[in-house]
Amino acid sequence: MTSTTDPSLTSWIESANEKGAEFPIQSLPWGAFRRKGSSERPRLGVPIGDQVLELKKCVENGLLAGIEVAAGEALCEPTLNALMALGPKAWTTVRSSISELLRSDCARVRDSNRCRMRAVVPMDQIELAMPVAIGDYTDFYASVHHATNVGSMFRPDNPLMPNYKHLPVGYHGRASSIVLSGTPIRRPSGQTCPKDGEPPVFGPSKALDYELEVGFFVGRGNTLGTPIPIASAREHIFGLTLVNDWSARDVQKWEYQPLGPFNAKNFGTTISPWVMQLDALEPFLAPAPKRAKADPELLPYLKWSDDFLIDLKLEVRIQSASMRDQDMAPVVVSKGTYRDMYWTFAQMLAHHTSTGCNLRPGDLLASGTVSGPDEDSRGCLLERTWRGEYPIELPDGTKRAFLQDGDEVIIAGYCQKRGATRISLGECRGRVVSS
Amino acid sequence: MTSTTDPSLTSWIESANEKGAEFPIQSLPWGAFRRKGSSERPRLGVPIGDQVLELKKCVENGLLAGIEVAAGEALCEPTLNALMALGPKAWTTVRSSISELLRSDCARVRDSNRCRMRAVVPMDQIELAMPVAIGDYTDFYASVHHATNVGSMFRPDNPLMPNYKHLPVGYHGRASSIVLSGTPIRRPSGQTCPKDGEPPVFGPSKALDYELEVGFFVGRGNTLGTPIPIASAREHIFGLTLVNDWSARDVQKWEYQPLGPFNAKNFGTTISPWVMQLDALEPFLAPAPKRAKADPELLPYLKWSDDFLIDLKLEVRIQSASMRDQDMAPVVVSKGTYRDMYWTFAQMLAHHTSTGCNLRPGDLLASGTVSGPDEDSRGCLLERTWRGEYPIELPDGTKRAFLQDGDEVIIAGYCQKRGATRISLGECRGRVVSS
Repeated sequence: MTSTTDPSLTSWIESANEKGAEFPIQSLPWGAFRRKGSSERPRLGVPIGDQVLELKKCVENGLLAGIEVAAGEALCEPTLNALMALGPKAWTTVRSSISELLRSDCARVRDSNRCRMRAVVPMDQIELAMPVAIGDYTDFYASVHHATNVGSMFRPDNPLMPNYKHLPVGYHGRASSIVLSGTPIRRPSGQTCPKDGEPPVFGPSKALDYELEVGFFVGRGNTLGTPIPIASAREHIFGLTLVNDWSARDVQKWEYQPLGPFNAKNFGTTISPWVMQLDALEPFLAPAPKRAKADPELLPYLKWSDDFLIDLKLEVRIQSASMRDQDMAPVVVSKGTYRDMYWTFAQMLAHHTSTGCNLRPGDLLASGTVSGPDEDSRGCLLERTWRGEYPIELPDGTKRAFLQDGDEVIIAGYCQKRGATRISLGECRGRVVSS
Repeated sequence: MTSTTDPSLTSWIESANEKGAEFPIQSLPWGAFRRKGSSERPRLGVPIGDQVLELKKCVENGLLAGIEVAAGEALCEPTLNALMALGPKAWTTVRSSISELLRSDCARVRDSNRCRMRAVVPMDQIELAMPVAIGDYTDFYASVHHATNVGSMFRPDNPLMPNYKHLPVGYHGRASSIVLSGTPIRRPSGQTCPKDGEPPVFGPSKALDYELEVGFFVGRGNTLGTPIPIASAREHIFGLTLVNDWSARDVQKWEYQPLGPFNAKNFGTTISPWVMQLDALEPFLAPAPKRAKADPELLPYLKWSDDFLIDLKLEVRIQSASMRDQDMAPVVVSKGTYRDMYWTFAQMLAHHTSTGCNLRPGDLLASGTVSGPDEDSRGCLLERTWRGEYPIELPDGTKRAFLQDGDEVIIAGYCQKRGATRISLGECRGRVVSS
């Protein structure tokens, strides 16, 4: 039996079954939307083919079988936070119920014009909204390739700090400036010190960079004072999003000591609009990184026999203003996989809460730049161009050490096994506008 | 005319007029509370003497003269955020209206048993709640004495980073673990490296510290991409709170490079329950710090002719478990003033938003440890005991390099001019409990 004839693998929404469809029935990520041009309160939705299933309407019309009252109420909220708080059993039940409703052999909506009119909205009639109210945002530094590359630029004698292989280094980020894919990013002004020992200057950043990252949203939280053991980490991970942690490298270089990056990062962080529930990625979980013989032994609170990475392919594309004018497609500038990371999501979560720090539903934890061992798998321009020394050439003939005004950066991510359906995390886009 | 006979300086609530009263009519800070033992939604209130004025009841009974509809609605919310969003004109009007209602010559509530029963609650019948929903928390490093002391411990050759006198160094903190005064603080466990070059260990922190800080709440916010010029900073500052930024020094030492403190701080931050509106502190504003001749010139975005510090006296007291058992009063261990700071609140706010970073009503910006030039004005044990080398002796005969389980730390702050009424910011308390 091929995937197109098994009814659990196809939908009555035909566009979902097309080869290369962005939102097949295996995918079903979560988002929030409103009707184009309206200012209504956003509603939760799940994309399927070129349509979106509106969940509030599904609940109001009793279309979702087998879900708890609390889950039904959560689906009527404008963000995912209430659903996230319900925990993994509820997430799986709700996802199964939605999947069942959309299967090609389920008549409930398929054969009811009234229900279809109410609960299914064409994608081209909506605009997306922030799917999650993010309380706190934490960013890690989980790629050893990234840490080594950047470290060797800033501290040639001492690229990798002694703590790096003992704990997933992380820092608190700025939640207020997290924006949805498509939001323009204004080039920040900031204080920089162009020449060591000379006075600093203030002005638009001359070293604006992207950072290819993957984030996860905390589902159920924990109480202050009660750590989450690593073996329970998965129960607290709701789903994944793509993240562009825009960085002003010249601001960062001058400000970051001794308390870490601050203004270099707080002017904007872009997330992709669809949150991919971890259940959908189950077939793509990969073993946790094998530690080299020379690597230090992990402390017990960071060890878990079922720990995992994700076989998630990632790429960054850039399209300059002149490429757009000439109808040139965006060009791939970084290409990596989330399998290359040194620290796992579960380790980040266990380490973060090991002090008793409380996480809340909707908190965002991001990986830090995803870089692999090869030059083209470096996940930011700082590394790709080695601090601007080796600019990359774009198809319009211009060169990039760092981002120019008008550049659009597109991060995309997907999972795919040979010959099987592609599960796409969608895109995380942002265009740089002048300061 | 003395202060006790001018009716604008006394209240018909007699306990507010007593010498040394914590909440005279000049003070009127903001808080949130519920009836003891109830689980009702918190209400906003203003303490006066040994009573609290319940603002929702005042609004419902039309007792507050001259306030806008939006302000009335904001006063019926469970937190101050809606009021904060209205901006400085509304804050001043509402404060004046409350002050007028409580004056000894205002009969509106004074002479109405019905109104008094409804709107005035004895302090001993309430418990306090978080007055603000804090979106983001930022911590600065604004005392040059603190930065120099700590820097010389961690980096003897290089105590003050080259950026220190050019910009107010800050970093993003953890908002979820900010707790109200009185909440116990569980000693965090964490990864530490007791001996350089040897493997790290995991366990309860052996170097738990307090940090005496002053924070301010953002009132009206700004749009992402639009900095707040320093000359407008004051319009965005709603009011002040006392902050204890508990720190695990051994965790901090091992983790903080290269991205700054993370787990060393995220297990708990205590704030005082009453938010002091900046208007109340007007008489105590002090000139911005005079920069020494050797100090570098400030960049224009950090310069403001009306910039200010606050003549706010601060102290930290400790009471150990055995001191409590023996009925010994808490002993003062740090004693400073907010006049000794190098960077001002306005500079922090202008710098923070200079990249376009958006602040939201209720965001908390804290000063970092307030240390002065003298030994007893050092605002944390790390400095007071010089990394534990010179422990301080408590009245029960025990010594403290760092905090022990059972120790209660009390931060207090007040403004007072010779012979005039004291404006107290109240207390920020927390007791260390075992991990």
